[in-house]
Amino acid sequence: MKTILCSSYRVCSPLVLPSWYTSVGVETNFYYDRRNARESQRRKFHQSREYHGQSRNSKNNLELSRLGGTIGALTIAGYLAWKKSTSNVAQLDAKKTPHETGKHDQVLKHLPHFSRNQVAEHYDDSRRIWVSFRRGVYDVTEFVAVHPGGSRILMAAGGSLEPFWELYPVHQKSDVFQILEKYRIGNLNEEDVVEAQEAVDHFKGEPMRHPALIRRADKPFNGETPPSLLTEKFHTPNDVFYVRNHLPVPQVDAKTYRLEIDGINLTETTFSLQDIKKFPKVSISATIQCGGNRRTEMGKDKVVAGLGWTGGAIGNAKWTGARLVDVLRSAGFKPEAYKHAKQLHVKFDGLDTDQSGECYGASVPLSYLLDGNFDAILAYEMNDKPIPIDHGFPVRIVLPGIVGARSVKWLSRVSISEEESQSPWQQRDYKVFSPSVSLETVDFSAAPPIMDTPVTSYICSHNNGDKVKKGPVKLQGYAFSGGGRGIVRVEISLDKGKTWNVARISDTANLESTKNWSWVLWEANVNIQANAEIWVKAVDSGYNQQPEDFNNIWNYRGLLSTAYHKIYLEAR
Amino acid sequence: MKTILCSSYRVCSPLVLPSWYTSVGVETNFYYDRRNARESQRRKFHQSREYHGQSRNSKNNLELSRLGGTIGALTIAGYLAWKKSTSNVAQLDAKKTPHETGKHDQVLKHLPHFSRNQVAEHYDDSRRIWVSFRRGVYDVTEFVAVHPGGSRILMAAGGSLEPFWELYPVHQKSDVFQILEKYRIGNLNEEDVVEAQEAVDHFKGEPMRHPALIRRADKPFNGETPPSLLTEKFHTPNDVFYVRNHLPVPQVDAKTYRLEIDGINLTETTFSLQDIKKFPKVSISATIQCGGNRRTEMGKDKVVAGLGWTGGAIGNAKWTGARLVDVLRSAGFKPEAYKHAKQLHVKFDGLDTDQSGECYGASVPLSYLLDGNFDAILAYEMNDKPIPIDHGFPVRIVLPGIVGARSVKWLSRVSISEEESQSPWQQRDYKVFSPSVSLETVDFSAAPPIMDTPVTSYICSHNNGDKVKKGPVKLQGYAFSGGGRGIVRVEISLDKGKTWNVARISDTANLESTKNWSWVLWEANVNIQANAEIWVKAVDSGYNQQPEDFNNIWNYRGLLSTAYHKIYLEAR
Repeated sequence: MKTILCSSYRVCSPLVLPSWYTSVGVETNFYYDRRNARESQRRKFHQSREYHGQSRNSKNNLELSRLGGTIGALTIAGYLAWKKSTSNVAQLDAKKTPHETGKHDQVLKHLPHFSRNQVAEHYDDSRRIWVSFRRGVYDVTEFVAVHPGGSRILMAAGGSLEPFWELYPVHQKSDVFQILEKYRIGNLNEEDVVEAQEAVDHFKGEPMRHPALIRRADKPFNGETPPSLLTEKFHTPNDVFYVRNHLPVPQVDAKTYRLEIDGINLTETTFSLQDIKKFPKVSISATIQCGGNRRTEMGKDKVVAGLGWTGGAIGNAKWTGARLVDVLRSAGFKPEAYKHAKQLHVKFDGLDTDQSGECYGASVPLSYLLDGNFDAILAYEMNDKPIPIDHGFPVRIVLPGIVGARSVKWLSRVSISEEESQSPWQQRDYKVFSPSVSLETVDFSAAPPIMDTPVTSYICSHNNGDKVKKGPVKLQGYAFSGGGRGIVRVEISLDKGKTWNVARISDTANLESTKNWSWVLWEANVNIQANAEIWVKAVDSGYNQQPEDFNNIWNYRGLLSTAYHKIYLEAR
Repeated sequence: MKTILCSSYRVCSPLVLPSWYTSVGVETNFYYDRRNARESQRRKFHQSREYHGQSRNSKNNLELSRLGGTIGALTIAGYLAWKKSTSNVAQLDAKKTPHETGKHDQVLKHLPHFSRNQVAEHYDDSRRIWVSFRRGVYDVTEFVAVHPGGSRILMAAGGSLEPFWELYPVHQKSDVFQILEKYRIGNLNEEDVVEAQEAVDHFKGEPMRHPALIRRADKPFNGETPPSLLTEKFHTPNDVFYVRNHLPVPQVDAKTYRLEIDGINLTETTFSLQDIKKFPKVSISATIQCGGNRRTEMGKDKVVAGLGWTGGAIGNAKWTGARLVDVLRSAGFKPEAYKHAKQLHVKFDGLDTDQSGECYGASVPLSYLLDGNFDAILAYEMNDKPIPIDHGFPVRIVLPGIVGARSVKWLSRVSISEEESQSPWQQRDYKVFSPSVSLETVDFSAAPPIMDTPVTSYICSHNNGDKVKKGPVKLQGYAFSGGGRGIVRVEISLDKGKTWNVARISDTANLESTKNWSWVLWEANVNIQANAEIWVKAVDSGYNQQPEDFNNIWNYRGLLSTAYHKIYLEAR
């Protein structure tokens, strides 16, 4: 069995892993992303038997071996494309070292020298905020207000950035280094420069990941489902479900796990996993989508900041657990108690923390929970298996119809509060600003945090630039809208919108319901006789339509990148 | 007082009434619309003291006289523009007669003759369906399936269309006559042709309408609010609130009025107006928008069917009455009783009927009502006054966030049913199809009835083609989204999307609420130094964006015409 599974993975990988690097080209992220320097080593590791030998994965593997059946029809052309693109990846990797060098490693002669103690005196606004990084000293007082990570940067005030950037290695990119150099005011005395040591690896002991996942960042791990896999099943298999981690994955013991509930009109109560399992067990199918899904398309003409997701930062699963309202009720929650209250929020904290102890956090307005149609689930199963470590073991909150960033994993606390979560992911990160706003001009308070997401659609069966045989071509993909809105229609155009054909869609939308939490999968047979640009768009039950292109929805973070998906197919 | 009011109207009218005729140009409707032949006479009538003398309007008049204060600054240029455009209207009117002639008045020599009795034999599918109209005999068997009014056409099977078209005068248009002639199979014997008599006027005794309303159809009455009035007040005054009637306005006596409640899991119960007023009195502010609002823009490049609304088929009011769920509860409604039922519908019938007794009707999925956040109101007041006759006196249902067509006026019955309303307005009319679908190819079952509506925005302060002085210009307008979604942002571009400026919006959106039933009003100061195309777009709290143009959302009925609003301003 092990050998079979292993070979199915091997057949699977070549087709799905590398093509995105060639089709997407150079990634357009300048802030949060980092091309993983150790990808090829790691991939080899995952492909080894050590991974497949793990018993906890054997069921998933079976599921995937079925998936692999479809993908197994590997052509020689496909294999050659893979060989070519893996070597591209290797070349790219070879250009980078774990610690990139830059001006911060150089002494700039026109600038003064400072000692570590002098830097240490500048730890707050009144004395200016200084930090050091390698040989550079920087006055970041003005930068604090626009730092996407919020006031977290103040942890390094008066000291060195190095230990923090070890934890948030997304900073270790030349683009970030360039921004930093804008604030350079001096050089650190040579005796105070300590050669970067191998810091504690906060990411040690993280779970192994399926080799089919396309790595978008390594620390924290972020992996994308190859879009071609998404249309294989209505429920995306756990092992290839996209992973979006913001911090190191916490190691949680199910036996000692506790969920704390507290806040306005509630009795502070603690629940074990067993306690949670005593509540009525309910299941919902729900699509979870990263706010950055399809970001690379938006970034094609104008740089955006963030991980270079194509269309696979989305997945649909069966989530099983207790209704959040049921658990809240046992802590005294009575919806009517909030009727005349001012707007309140339900905050969710994760067990994933940075070295200051600050955790990942998010919130939704309480009004969502008071909505009788909303299904918030304290999920402990994903597709009928215990929730995998990468997806929040042992318990995550699943908030259907809402951007993935709010469905906090490794959930430690739920509280009802007068204020939103103050985490940077709520206050700064997952917000969409006007096309004319940049990181330099942004007023973070000017946009609300993303909650429900607009209608989107994607062609999964083909990549931009694919060559196809003249004649009938079967296109496949997904379409999804947030807020419980179902998909009314998916339309395909082969002539840039002059005519549209309606695709067949799965019967997974109930347009008479306001609880359409799942995507639809669609397919369309088209007749390709010449090179063609294929457009797909979807219409949701609020009759919202996607914008035709990205020009006017562009935002510097590349979020909610939901214009028509357009690919070019070459006919042969 | 009368004189003052009268003069305020007179000052008001020139600015607001006629400009639309010139700026919109020839209307693009071929089916439902009819330019009113008697407009100028009627306007004279409304401007007479007889109208203003009516005591029931005196409070509204006061409200409007305040409005008039702003508008009252009538310039000579404005007056001349008005003179010019009113004479345009008169010319257009003069070209039409109440009964247009056409081929149906002619004997076509190459076709056979039939008697009235022969026509009468063809009254169902098995014998083919024939109708006569003036001198023509038509086989409409194939047309029945695509008739926008549904099977209603069968009322005329085997007989003459004339009496029916008297009630639905929207048919009396050359475009409709042309469609009819496609089905011509013969001539009616001359002795059976009866000269059209003055039929019963089903529209006699309808309420008088404010002269500021721009008439889009006369029988049934459809009047648009001049967009320039919409931004004057957050709550649109009753008298100038757009009117969308589908049938003659019923005369209802408040004393004998009864509302019937029945259906699945309910005890059949009848309520008088006084009974309804005994329930807790609640008020909501809610925008009601016609599905055809802004239709003329969509029809600019490719003909659409429907009344030629510009951006004024929308209004926002304070609606006061009883919660529908409260009244239903007293008839035995228990939300939990429906939890495991298949999808049900709440049907609404109006007292407005055609001569067959069939009433206006609509329905919404029951899931909306089970949603704790949804505010369905049995409204008996509109802006703190009894609901005006044109808006559903004594009781209408107000379904906020949902297309206006479902907020049934003159409500006679609410029932919970396994099926949707079977009215043509639910089954055929207010549905949006793919751009490639025409009335000839439509499958009415392929699209769901419109419920919540997509985000839209509109510039009310200026018309396309307006001349403005170089320098600062203040733009004003509204933005609205359905489904309780609030408006996050309104953006203005003067350079076709290259750059965007964020407009100031009224603080009427609460983005932490899922109950944003009202529009926002916005304003933006721009600096016009040369001729400019102004674009406006809005973003809602689901971060839905409007499409940039109408090409790919075009639908043959011209519904949900929500692309960016674009106007051209000439700088002088």
